[in-house]
Amino acid sequence: MIVVNKFTIDWVEIITVGNEVVSGRTVNSNATNIARRMQSLGFTINRVTSVRDEEDEIVDVITSALRRKNKVIIITGGLGPTYDDITSQSLAKALNRKLEQNVKALEQIKEKYRKRNLELTPERIKMAFIPEGAQPVDNNKGIAPGIYVNVEGVEILATPGVPSEMEDVLENFIRSFLKYRPAFKYYEANLEVQGVMESAIAPHIAELVKKYFPIYIKTHPQGKELEKPVLRIQIALSSDNEMEAKKKIEDSKRELLNVIHALHGTVTDQGTS
Amino acid sequence: MIVVNKFTIDWVEIITVGNEVVSGRTVNSNATNIARRMQSLGFTINRVTSVRDEEDEIVDVITSALRRKNKVIIITGGLGPTYDDITSQSLAKALNRKLEQNVKALEQIKEKYRKRNLELTPERIKMAFIPEGAQPVDNNKGIAPGIYVNVEGVEILATPGVPSEMEDVLENFIRSFLKYRPAFKYYEANLEVQGVMESAIAPHIAELVKKYFPIYIKTHPQGKELEKPVLRIQIALSSDNEMEAKKKIEDSKRELLNVIHALHGTVTDQGTS
Repeated sequence: MIVVNKFTIDWVEIITVGNEVVSGRTVNSNATNIARRMQSLGFTINRVTSVRDEEDEIVDVITSALRRKNKVIIITGGLGPTYDDITSQSLAKALNRKLEQNVKALEQIKEKYRKRNLELTPERIKMAFIPEGAQPVDNNKGIAPGIYVNVEGVEILATPGVPSEMEDVLENFIRSFLKYRPAFKYYEANLEVQGVMESAIAPHIAELVKKYFPIYIKTHPQGKELEKPVLRIQIALSSDNEMEAKKKIEDSKRELLNVIHALHGTVTDQGTS
Repeated sequence: MIVVNKFTIDWVEIITVGNEVVSGRTVNSNATNIARRMQSLGFTINRVTSVRDEEDEIVDVITSALRRKNKVIIITGGLGPTYDDITSQSLAKALNRKLEQNVKALEQIKEKYRKRNLELTPERIKMAFIPEGAQPVDNNKGIAPGIYVNVEGVEILATPGVPSEMEDVLENFIRSFLKYRPAFKYYEANLEVQGVMESAIAPHIAELVKKYFPIYIKTHPQGKELEKPVLRIQIALSSDNEMEAKKKIEDSKRELLNVIHALHGTVTDQGTS
């Protein structure tokens, strides 16, 4: 539960496109990496949706994401040359814009194939088609450029799904396109606790969460509740006031340590970030 | 793109609940494992959505999933004893049912704590509350039972988020609750191709997909498109006719091998399942 006042949170929503993720063929590490990177900038991730390579599905999830209060929407996958790479056309449809050949994107693609003496086939030219008013984002690890489009202040990025290309395009987007920068930063402390059951510490955490509002304390059970309980406990806060945030985290952590000791648990402090 | 007639597909939708997945703290391996297991039974995964531990979000995504044509909806995470474990109450709200203490669930929970001489606190009793008309599903790896509810033929399962508990509850659901069994089974062949660019093979695959309708052929780029292209190619089909499905996969694979050789690629056959 994020108890921070909703109006102070800068939400990012992630959409991954591709049957390989939905079907369980591929673990969704792209979503994990995008989430971590955006969180490091002070954003909070709202939701992650994985959809199949179907136009209706992609349009539906982009349209829904635009209705939620997101500052940024990041779509990954479906920008390549094959018949089922349809993210660009689906994005255009969701935004009710034309899909058009982008001169800069075409030049980049041409140049990449020219260096290898390869001709421009329709499948290769297809990667230069992006929604009207959108801009291509450099992809130094592959062919298909990313797509950036600003829709009434909501910044949308589409990246290829190959992880190295996704990361390259994401960094180029953050460096050269992303206009919004959160005032809030994210702070976190982590504890590992042995010998305390999640159900035993639960009421104490509920109290601390009230007392240190808007702090976020979450137990992540790692072992077995009854036989050998191991809990990772995350104490987190997003704030524009570093000193106050760190004090709240430290104070609640101190109280939590007292509780853990009273419950005969042992603790390893896993540090603060 | 799944080109099989939509009316013959048995869809499953997966919802994972928990800030730890949305924020990128944890990779969503539960979704991957649920998808693989359900696909092995002949189901096709429709969509995977990860939401935060927020009642509005959980209710919204369950309600949306019920509007899509799913045979089964599997929710994982948020069944534990802490203040932010709210999947059961959110499920009740989405179904417009009361949340009620389940006698069988309470007995199971009591027994697990009794064996260790532990008292029943409100946080522990909370895990026995499930929506009206739902049934608890055995959890042999932890405390919180799973939740099964059949809503006008749509089968809904909620499991705890700890992976070992998720797997145990999922198997108990498949063994003792799941009523619907797909007539279709899933067949797949895989090739690894070196030295052929995705953009070069793309038009040939588009042709094969038409010719061998409703086959599904997907290229998964692993290397670098220009310098050292490596593609995994997946040829797949869901069918209630094993012989016909295998013949279509074999025939399209043979044609694909001819194309790859003509494009000077080398192939490793990664087998059929």
